[in-house]
Order: sequence, then structure tokens, then C-alpha cells
Amino acid sequence: MSIQIVKSIREMQDLADRYRQADKTIAVVPTMGYLHRGHARLIELARSRTDLVVTTIFVNPTQFAPNEDFKSYPRDFERDQRIAEHAGTDILFAPEVDEMYPDGFESKVEVERVSTILEGAFRPIHFRGVTTVVTKLFHITKPHLAIFGQKDAQQAFIIRRMVKDLNFDIDILLAPIVREEDGLALSSRNVYLGETERKNALVLSRSLQYAANKIQKGNHDVPELRREMEEIITGGNPSQIDYIAFINPELFQETDTITPPEVLIALAVRFGTTRLIDNIIVTLP
Amino acid sequence: MSIQIVKSIREMQDLADRYRQADKTIAVVPTMGYLHRGHARLIELARSRTDLVVTTIFVNPTQFAPNEDFKSYPRDFERDQRIAEHAGTDILFAPEVDEMYPDGFESKVEVERVSTILEGAFRPIHFRGVTTVVTKLFHITKPHLAIFGQKDAQQAFIIRRMVKDLNFDIDILLAPIVREEDGLALSSRNVYLGETERKNALVLSRSLQYAANKIQKGNHDVPELRREMEEIITGGNPSQIDYIAFINPELFQETDTITPPEVLIALAVRFGTTRLIDNIIVTLP
Repeated sequence: MSIQIVKSIREMQDLADRYRQADKTIAVVPTMGYLHRGHARLIELARSRTDLVVTTIFVNPTQFAPNEDFKSYPRDFERDQRIAEHAGTDILFAPEVDEMYPDGFESKVEVERVSTILEGAFRPIHFRGVTTVVTKLFHITKPHLAIFGQKDAQQAFIIRRMVKDLNFDIDILLAPIVREEDGLALSSRNVYLGETERKNALVLSRSLQYAANKIQKGNHDVPELRREMEEIITGGNPSQIDYIAFINPELFQETDTITPPEVLIALAVRFGTTRLIDNIIVTLP
Repeated sequence: MSIQIVKSIREMQDLADRYRQADKTIAVVPTMGYLHRGHARLIELARSRTDLVVTTIFVNPTQFAPNEDFKSYPRDFERDQRIAEHAGTDILFAPEVDEMYPDGFESKVEVERVSTILEGAFRPIHFRGVTTVVTKLFHITKPHLAIFGQKDAQQAFIIRRMVKDLNFDIDILLAPIVREEDGLALSSRNVYLGETERKNALVLSRSLQYAANKIQKGNHDVPELRREMEEIITGGNPSQIDYIAFINPELFQETDTITPPEVLIALAVRFGTTRLIDNIIVTLP
């Protein structure tokens, strides 16, 4: 079946009802568009698990602060449509902003503690925007399964927390980060990087890999590891290091001690005006 | 079929799935228990509209402030079970607090503006607790239809706003207030009233009826109507009048002008330590 484009919430809900009534399983892959191979991987994963794959494309204004890049966020609907279809999307749900936030809209969904730290400390309204729009997308697409990327590690944690707390009957699957051959994590925002910044940005994945290797060899001195990562990143001439954080992934709490089974190292760094995030999960021997 | 008691979220979701798969429609009637004829009316309404009627009983701690009556809120599960069954309930969903709010719970659902006025001004965390638990109950019982009482007029507005904003695919039906023969609106909290307070509390319905009659006869002077209602209520020796509000029911905004098609008059008044609410919708000729 060729890809179907849906822009109306009511139509999407009716389609989801019809598939559920026919005993078909539904997966949703929520995106902000400008799809890359990372998104394609999410869609392929959905394709392999369920009968109907819904990819959503919506650049959600409520998760951008006024000083952020909502207006300039890259958009290319025709290209997105091709990539989504090729990766196995059945329905592309791409509503307009007015359809999602009509006049009088005044509701929000929030995960409290974990939305205020790390990314949340630098982007105070960001996760509230994410959890609110994901709630809406879940109610609109009625999935059995939703797939998110591990690249937004904190977002992934928050959505799983929200799903658990609010009893959404939806399985959440996280897909690993997809990287360029040289290690740069794929991101729609990579198009903002100039040529030199693009090369310099490699210090991010390099610093993460460096710390991961040292941890696996038994070095668990977090302050020292953080200092060394900072040195590597500083070599890439960043305009600002927002954070380099060692996190207990089960509770999503920063930690200075590394304990099995896993530690998450996450960072946010700016090159020029472009803010990039990356992370790695280190499994302890 | 005789009433089935369910305490596990997972079990309730599985039951709801099974009914939906069999093409049955589901209605939910969310309550805090200590059921009275007002609740019975909601359940009967549900019975007349859908295949499966789920009544929920959960005294939700997060909608009570520390100084409020969570601990003393009246509870009588066996009596509730009889009333719920007699009115036509198929499933009574009555989870424990730990089942609804396990350790680590940190999510909330909020309707912003309208949760801060009137009841919200006196009970700042109340509606956040309501919208969060109703979201959970909707995800757990998976209803096509949910029924609420008009007695909690602001709650009813807020839930409809939330359902619309967050795209819950659920119809909301409001049922009229049920009153004692002498006019007192039924409330689980009426058991708190002493004999004299019980008689005095009749000033509430009397003042509402008085204003409604005057409005229908063409008197649209809100400040004067409010003064007269205050006089009537003061005759009942209340310990405090929290508010007497004239409200545009479409926007749920206080108004000093009465315009067709309807005006809502809502009030909250304390007799001794018992806080009662009541309201009336006046349809204009």
C-alpha cells in the first residue's frame, strides 16, 4: 500500500479505530520531520513489529522557547514523505499547528523532577511541550507501540516515566543512536553546522567513546573522566559546553559513582549558535 | 451479570481491551465512593447508553490539600458496591492508593487558566489532582463515554477542556444535579452537617433558585442579584461564603453581564467546617 497523508485529527483517530477493530497492531514514530537515517531506522523497527506504521511529522511550537529555532527548524515535506515511505510508513500524520493547538488551548502534561535537570535546566519549557504533544499524538494515533530514539536520552526517560505514571497502555521501544561513519550522531540540526564546525563536532562522540573505554577498563573516577572529556571537547573549539553528565539511567539522576549495570554519559555542547546533544550507554563488565 | 470488582490496573485494561475487541462500548463513571442517588443517576445514564458500565471508586489523595478532608472523607465500600450494582454497574474498579501512585510517580496533567479561579482559588492543587487522576482512569478503563455530574460545574468544564485539548477520543456527558426533596444538592459531604447546619444549608439552593427566577423575569443586574443571594445565604448562618459567581458557561469566565443563551451561577459556602458547593444553569428566554 502506498503512503497515505493525513492532516486531520478526526480522520487519523477514525483510521486508527478501523485498524484496531480489524485486530491490527499500530506503531507510531513521532518526529519533527527533516528525516534522516536515524528516523528511517525507527520506522523500519516499527515496520518489523506491527501491522500499521504511523509516522508523525509535526514541528511542535510549544517545545521551543522564543529564543530557539522553531522558525528556522529545517523542513522538507516532500523529502520526508519519500524517506518515510521508503522506510515502511503506511500513514504520515502531518497536522498544521492550528489543528493541534486551536484557540482556547490551555492544557499541559508534565513530568516534574526529571524535566527540570540537564536539558530541562537549559530549556525550561521544552519537556512540558514534548510530553503534552506526545500525549496528544498518542490519543490521536492510538498505537500499541511507540518508538523513540536513544539520542534524546532524557526525552526517552521522560516519556517512559509519563507512560508509566499516566497508565498509557502503550509499549515504548528505544532505538540506538545512528551515527555518520566518522561518529557524528545524526541530527536534523546538523545542517546548521559550517564545514569547520562539522569537523570540530567530532570531539563529542570521541569524548564519549574515550570515557566509555576508560570505564570499561575499570577507571570509575567521574570527576577525572569529566575533566578529560572537557579537554577533548575544548579541542573542538566549542562556543559553550552546557553539560557533561554521568547519569544513573534507571532513575535519571546525576551521579559521581559508577555502579553496575549501566551508566549513561550525556552532553550538550554548542558550536557557534548550533546546540548539539549526544550520549552513550556504558554497560559495566 | 453480577458486579465484578477489579483492583489491578493491568486487569482492568485487559478487560477493557477484551470488550472493545468484541465491539462493545464502554462507559466510565468516576467517583470517590460513598455513593448517593446522584451517583446512581450517573450510573443509570451510563447503563442506558453503553454495553459495559465501569464505575470507579477512588478517593484520590492528590486532589486534597494537607488541611482538607482526605483522611476523614466518608468511605463505605460494601454499601457502594450494592448501590453501584443496583444502578447497573458491570465492573467496579477500586484500586488502592499504591496501585495508582507507586514510588517515583512524578507526572501531572493540568488545565491552566480555568484551574486557578473560583474553586481553584480556594483549592490551588485540587484540579491538577482531578485532571491527573481522570487521565489515569481514562487510560485504565478505555471508555467511549465518561459521565460526570453537573454539581461540580467547574470540574466538568475542566474535564471537557482537557479532553478537547489532549484529544482524548471520549464523549463526555454531564448529568443534572440531584437534590433532596427540600432542595439540598446531594453530596457525600452532607454527612458532615449537624442537624441545624443541614437545615441552614437550604439557603444555598434557595438563593440560586431566587436569582434564577429573577433573571428569567428580566432582572439582569448581577451586582444586585449577588447582594440578594448573599443576604439569603447569610440568613443560614454560614461560617464563610467563599464565592457567589456569575459565569459565562461557554468560556467559564466570571461575568457581570447576563447574555443568552445561558448563565451559570455557582457558589461555595461553609457551614461550620463543612464546605458545600452548588450551582444552577439559567437558560435565558
